[in-house]
Amino acid sequence: MTFGWSWHIEWQSAYEFHGHQIDQVLEDVTTEFQRVMVAKLTRFGKSLIIDGKVQSTVTDEYIYHEALVHPLLLSLENPKEVLILGGGEGATLREVLKHNSVSKAVMVDIDQAVIDFAKKHLVEWHSGAFDNPRAKIVIDDALHYIQNAQEKYDAIVLDLTDPIMGNSSYKLYTKEFYEKLNKILNKDGGVVTQATSPSFSLDTFSGIYNTMKSVFRNVSASITYVPSFDGLWGFVYASNNKISLNELNAKAIDSLIAQRINGKLRFYDGETHTMLFSLPKNIRDRLSSETRISTESNPVTVPA
Amino acid sequence: MTFGWSWHIEWQSAYEFHGHQIDQVLEDVTTEFQRVMVAKLTRFGKSLIIDGKVQSTVTDEYIYHEALVHPLLLSLENPKEVLILGGGEGATLREVLKHNSVSKAVMVDIDQAVIDFAKKHLVEWHSGAFDNPRAKIVIDDALHYIQNAQEKYDAIVLDLTDPIMGNSSYKLYTKEFYEKLNKILNKDGGVVTQATSPSFSLDTFSGIYNTMKSVFRNVSASITYVPSFDGLWGFVYASNNKISLNELNAKAIDSLIAQRINGKLRFYDGETHTMLFSLPKNIRDRLSSETRISTESNPVTVPA
Amino acid sequence: MTFGWSWHIEWQSAYEFHGHQIDQVLEDVTTEFQRVMVAKLTRFGKSLIIDGKVQSTVTDEYIYHEALVHPLLLSLENPKEVLILGGGEGATLREVLKHNSVSKAVMVDIDQAVIDFAKKHLVEWHSGAFDNPRAKIVIDDALHYIQNAQEKYDAIVLDLTDPIMGNSSYKLYTKEFYEKLNKILNKDGGVVTQATSPSFSLDTFSGIYNTMKSVFRNVSASITYVPSFDGLWGFVYASNNKISLNELNAKAIDSLIAQRINGKLRFYDGETHTMLFSLPKNIRDRLSSETRISTESNPVTVPA
Amino acid sequence: MTFGWSWHIEWQSAYEFHGHQIDQVLEDVTTEFQRVMVAKLTRFGKSLIIDGKVQSTVTDEYIYHEALVHPLLLSLENPKEVLILGGGEGATLREVLKHNSVSKAVMVDIDQAVIDFAKKHLVEWHSGAFDNPRAKIVIDDALHYIQNAQEKYDAIVLDLTDPIMGNSSYKLYTKEFYEKLNKILNKDGGVVTQATSPSFSLDTFSGIYNTMKSVFRNVSASITYVPSFDGLWGFVYASNNKISLNELNAKAIDSLIAQRINGKLRFYDGETHTMLFSLPKNIRDRLSSETRISTESNPVTVPA
Repeated sequence: MTFGWSWHIEWQSAYEFHGHQIDQVLEDVTTEFQRVMVAKLTRFGKSLIIDGKVQSTVTDEYIYHEALVHPLLLSLENPKEVLILGGGEGATLREVLKHNSVSKAVMVDIDQAVIDFAKKHLVEWHSGAFDNPRAKIVIDDALHYIQNAQEKYDAIVLDLTDPIMGNSSYKLYTKEFYEKLNKILNKDGGVVTQATSPSFSLDTFSGIYNTMKSVFRNVSASITYVPSFDGLWGFVYASNNKISLNELNAKAIDSLIAQRINGKLRFYDGETHTMLFSLPKNIRDRLSSETRISTESNPVTVPA
Repeated sequence: MTFGWSWHIEWQSAYEFHGHQIDQVLEDVTTEFQRVMVAKLTRFGKSLIIDGKVQSTVTDEYIYHEALVHPLLLSLENPKEVLILGGGEGATLREVLKHNSVSKAVMVDIDQAVIDFAKKHLVEWHSGAFDNPRAKIVIDDALHYIQNAQEKYDAIVLDLTDPIMGNSSYKLYTKEFYEKLNKILNKDGGVVTQATSPSFSLDTFSGIYNTMKSVFRNVSASITYVPSFDGLWGFVYASNNKISLNELNAKAIDSLIAQRINGKLRFYDGETHTMLFSLPKNIRDRLSSETRISTESNPVTVPA
Repeated sequence: MTFGWSWHIEWQSAYEFHGHQIDQVLEDVTTEFQRVMVAKLTRFGKSLIIDGKVQSTVTDEYIYHEALVHPLLLSLENPKEVLILGGGEGATLREVLKHNSVSKAVMVDIDQAVIDFAKKHLVEWHSGAFDNPRAKIVIDDALHYIQNAQEKYDAIVLDLTDPIMGNSSYKLYTKEFYEKLNKILNKDGGVVTQATSPSFSLDTFSGIYNTMKSVFRNVSASITYVPSFDGLWGFVYASNNKISLNELNAKAIDSLIAQRINGKLRFYDGETHTMLFSLPKNIRDRLSSETRISTESNPVTVPA
Repeated sequence: MTFGWSWHIEWQSAYEFHGHQIDQVLEDVTTEFQRVMVAKLTRFGKSLIIDGKVQSTVTDEYIYHEALVHPLLLSLENPKEVLILGGGEGATLREVLKHNSVSKAVMVDIDQAVIDFAKKHLVEWHSGAFDNPRAKIVIDDALHYIQNAQEKYDAIVLDLTDPIMGNSSYKLYTKEFYEKLNKILNKDGGVVTQATSPSFSLDTFSGIYNTMKSVFRNVSASITYVPSFDGLWGFVYASNNKISLNELNAKAIDSLIAQRINGKLRFYDGETHTMLFSLPKNIRDRLSSETRISTESNPVTVPA
């Protein structure tokens, strides 16, 4: 018999790894910022792997991207101008553009090479979103962009690298950063961030949650299992609204989807919303006992 | 630096594996039925591994066992006599005995050696449940036991090996088997089975669900992420009641727990119940499109 | 710290594997015959991997190719016409062309795509040998070529796929095949074959040795460790000469090299020759006790 | 099908590992000095593994132990008193005691627990050598023992841990240490040390070789492939004799074995001796270009 011999091995820590067989490597290059690979994994099909981490796969990227974008946008009154930080594959942009209220979506990513890659290999992800007339692509460092931003936005979607120790990305998960975002949010605007894995870095998830609570009025956390991340993934949504996300029931969500979203969703609907925002007791206990606030001088991070 | 060198590698398929570093192997023997290892995994601590599959670990076994036992028992009026098939570690028995309505719990497991192991190494699992005066332990093959059973039960908890191809365990997930169970259930009694992983064998999960629907009046499915199983885990609950499990809201569950359960729960409560029974759209779609019914002649299985 | 995440994992059997970290995949395609990858391994640098087996690497390919070619050619009086079966990378051809006696080297490989790959990526291997006026490249199946061959050769070099069970390559290691070769050998000509790994398939090595002994007058075996094969590698040399290879001493070899080889050797010289043909007692014992002869109807193979 | 799930994974470096399936772990404990495991590997059978390195296995330990002991002892006139440093399994002692000239063999090992383990699990290794009346076992640190040694010896066999960076074992491979040994050697006595792997740490092998050359008159290196070490292994032999080891031919060795060794050898004989001391050109070139001498202040080590 023949055993698999070409493997992507992802380390969750020094004592745990997950191995996925690679059917074919389509591209493997090191850009100015990172090693970027597009490969076909036997289980997941075409996949984008950056610096050893599966970023998203053609068979399940919709779970992450729908959970990231739709709860926030549906909870806002009439989001028109949306800012996306990160999100080089174009799938976050694709989901944002499904909202008929959105007239402008600005996406800021640091690595032109990743966007070029996405255009070449990942059409299933971006579905042409890069060329949508409502979209604007900016190549810039997210922190630099925010420090110089003049415009205001109704929604800001943070689709960023984890706050890895010894990497500057942790600055994008601090109180100082969220305060800057708050200043460029329109009244009744909202923010969402990916918040790492409650399975592998629960303390980071709870730290991000508590940090956002120190800046914004309404903060909600959601969790879902993402197969290609081999564990749960967390998101934190924040706004200065009166109504928080976990107070919206399934019926309300189904009705908002029907009114405001063009195109089909595969993961998110009313019942999925209920699931996303109903946290199991063991994780809820951790969130409610969290007291740390991530700051530039004392950041909450995940181990490199 | 030193890399881990003693590893448990669990294969989800021929093209995917998860590796966990072993700090120490406490016992490693082959019984009449299976290879049984008790080892300390760096991530999860003391763990029971049978034929290469992590069965449960000291740090997260409560998730699986609470999800298996409590929703069913709380949905029943006044469950007194409970039958457990499988569950050699004793943790399912431990959870069943937390219900103050239960006067008798019969546990049937095929492998005396596993129970002896559990008594020696897994006190955190059984917590003395084997010696509880309400408990009765029977060493027998589950199918054989059911074919000869005379007594009736209020609840039957199936904590069995997956329906693996080329192994007789698949018989314990068929229509014929559920019909036999139905005959030894008291009126208004209920059954729950572990139903494999919706992450790695979604078709098996939906097959079990649909097979139970062909026999029982009310059938509900739940899903939760179990860290040491490296994915989602599914359960199917069935009864001939008027009210099905996913119609019970969080408040009702919290109140039932307060009335009927002695001892603390770490995972399950009202909000966790809502999470468990709110299935994401992509999995719901699979369940509702399922048409297969598992039978002895045409069983639904998972690949060996 | 960062752990390696892109790995080539080579299985020596169902219960043993060797893992090599990949720095970059340069090409990964499936030709009509096989999956061919050119990758940079951290330990070995640029490497050719076919169907999961490292074929050769830029840092140690000279060991295999020098051990394959030079002992045979130096043991022959004046080898002019040489036939190579297999050897798509071009390195066997390169070594053959170093012999100033050689006026013509015909190389027969089944896979044009591998040769194209070699031309594009493996210049360190072929060093322009494909374009040498004394070289002739033929795309054909080795067995088919031999069945139709009219010309005679002074030396035949078999640089072929292992005789894998359930693959037709085993035919190229049988008595019938060696008898065919014998018919197209000039008087005093000789043959050499790679003979699999004495570390992982000692019985195959001894089977090939004994099969050649049933056809040719003088048969010698050599062994050397090849780092990128993670074990010993064996070769069997045969001729109808009066003098066999393991009777040539170090001095004689050094003198023959000086007379007949153009260009530098990195591995092979007189003392290396002595090492190659001095077999350790445990392996000698296995060779001398071998009685099997590989035939088309009862072939000696390695497990797939 | 079933894939192996219990694995010993040995890292040769951060970018290379070898995996061996474990059939059963017989013992796994951490002593005062190290983690010691006795396990049955599918390929090699019962094996001793210390701190993640396979020390020796029942199926191939004879290769290492015969290559370590016999060339040195046979090259000495009449070795009577032998000192062994390390060698806790008892197999080095076993080989030393096969020499009919030996009247006393003192073995010094730091870890009583390893010797107790060996007595319990590794009878195939020691074959009762611990109880031989000519043997004396001392529990002590090798360096401490040598600093206080009063007696003189005809032969000293160093069966020690590799000179790992950041561990004090490197002191046992320095010029200072060899000078101490020289003082307790009888005239015409000799020393042998295991010298790490020319495959994975060629620079360490050549460094040890050159260091011994700076202290002793005659120094010879040998190399052999050891299957369970997944590569070549090196040894360096030193004496102040007139004749060096690589000048003894196969016939002389066979005759010495017949005269002086009781019991059968499985690996070592005259032809094996020739193989051991005939080094391939690429390794010879490295040895002859080595200029470093390992000292306590500037030691030659292998990476941890």
